[in-house]
Amino acid sequence: MIESPLTPIRIVLVEPAGPRNVGAIARVMKNMGLQRLVLVNPQCDPHGDEARQMAVHAADVLKQCCIVTTLPDALVGCRRAVATTGRDQTITEVRLEPPSRALAWLVQGFPHVLQAGAVIFGREDRGLTNEELNYAQRWIRIPSSAAYPSLNLAQAVGICCYELYRMTLEEDGRQEAVTSIDPPELLAEELAPFNHLEGYYRQLEALLLTIGYLYPHTAASRMEKFRRLFNRARLTDREVAMLRGILSQMEWALQHPGAASNGPPQS
Amino acid sequence: MIESPLTPIRIVLVEPAGPRNVGAIARVMKNMGLQRLVLVNPQCDPHGDEARQMAVHAADVLKQCCIVTTLPDALVGCRRAVATTGRDQTITEVRLEPPSRALAWLVQGFPHVLQAGAVIFGREDRGLTNEELNYAQRWIRIPSSAAYPSLNLAQAVGICCYELYRMTLEEDGRQEAVTSIDPPELLAEELAPFNHLEGYYRQLEALLLTIGYLYPHTAASRMEKFRRLFNRARLTDREVAMLRGILSQMEWALQHPGAASNGPPQS
Repeated sequence: MIESPLTPIRIVLVEPAGPRNVGAIARVMKNMGLQRLVLVNPQCDPHGDEARQMAVHAADVLKQCCIVTTLPDALVGCRRAVATTGRDQTITEVRLEPPSRALAWLVQGFPHVLQAGAVIFGREDRGLTNEELNYAQRWIRIPSSAAYPSLNLAQAVGICCYELYRMTLEEDGRQEAVTSIDPPELLAEELAPFNHLEGYYRQLEALLLTIGYLYPHTAASRMEKFRRLFNRARLTDREVAMLRGILSQMEWALQHPGAASNGPPQS
Repeated sequence: MIESPLTPIRIVLVEPAGPRNVGAIARVMKNMGLQRLVLVNPQCDPHGDEARQMAVHAADVLKQCCIVTTLPDALVGCRRAVATTGRDQTITEVRLEPPSRALAWLVQGFPHVLQAGAVIFGREDRGLTNEELNYAQRWIRIPSSAAYPSLNLAQAVGICCYELYRMTLEEDGRQEAVTSIDPPELLAEELAPFNHLEGYYRQLEALLLTIGYLYPHTAASRMEKFRRLFNRARLTDREVAMLRGILSQMEWALQHPGAASNGPPQS
């Protein structure tokens, strides 16, 4: 396999149902220097004849694709994730960006420090759920005509792969990629990996349930608001550790009433 | 049919052999505001089931496609034509350009005086002959990886249609670039006023001192880190209220050990 500068970027398909789409996606990924295909609970056989036929000379991408059960499994180790949506109406609280902007952010730092990242695509018929969309930090809507806005899945992936590849080329598109949107803290330091953030959200939810701020039946929707808030801040590893430090100290204080201000030293 | 600003631009396919490709191309054309499909001596049936199945809601584009015998027939009335090629070797005497540049020339003058123009695509297996390439004034090579440079025909057309459509949005795109750093929450809602934020920071600092997370001599420098983190997220008024709700509930839980999870209802 030829080494590609985009190796740390994975393409994640949630419950794809069309084997020909999966095959066509493998092909256009390889065309555009991408190799890591992750399928979440696929509803078709990525190793069958139809997929292989469409992949043509990208059978290796299909063969090495990673099959997982849930979207969080697909994102383990990722520091940046971008999700795609064709629907304006469903996620009114997030900003939909054209591929060029969100993907420039995904490959920020290229070629010196390209961090592990993912572009997430939903089901052919229903896209991604709101819960799935909330695992991303930025959101893409590929511009399309009001006369027929819904793109074929393989075309949508193809356009995003093309934009990613363009950004690795010096002549075309590269200027877009170097435009910095992030504050300087994030250039010097690493963004927290996906699973560290998830650990923080789980600990926060547990504590908020303990102190009666959250109730089991409202926890999910309230936690979505916190996710959005903290994802927007794009936390570094050190900041996640700091926030978890607060939670741990609060847990300790709750178990040692009265002793709070003489508690064990925290960093 | 909805009027599209790209109506004068036609997509010309020379001897396409795959009906599914032709159908997929009709779909992505309509997605990207293009309507005029011209087939030169097609080697498949553009009106059969396979093509229609892939076109989905772009059956109108297929139905109205124009079938001609030769490439010059397809170009009648065109003032500008761009041809695509995947092969560097065949036309050494012409300059191969990325889609963005050649297509910007094709739609030059948009939206005031968009002249009739064509983008020409060759056969799935052999592309365009040198003679056919010479009917164009400019030539596109879609950038792709040396590991597997050959794109599926429908993907190549999709990428070019996407670039064309993007160019009709350029004005919108520019506005987007100006305002795009803020998340949509901030468009609908007001950022929290300075004094509300300060109130949150003071309450946070007091609680962190109480539980022993902060010590008086280190509080100031640690609080600066929290300020940076939360300022980066650009909190709305509602989010500040939510974060203060957590702190109040935490204070209550510390004063009522054991009663935590039965505490008074919080918003």
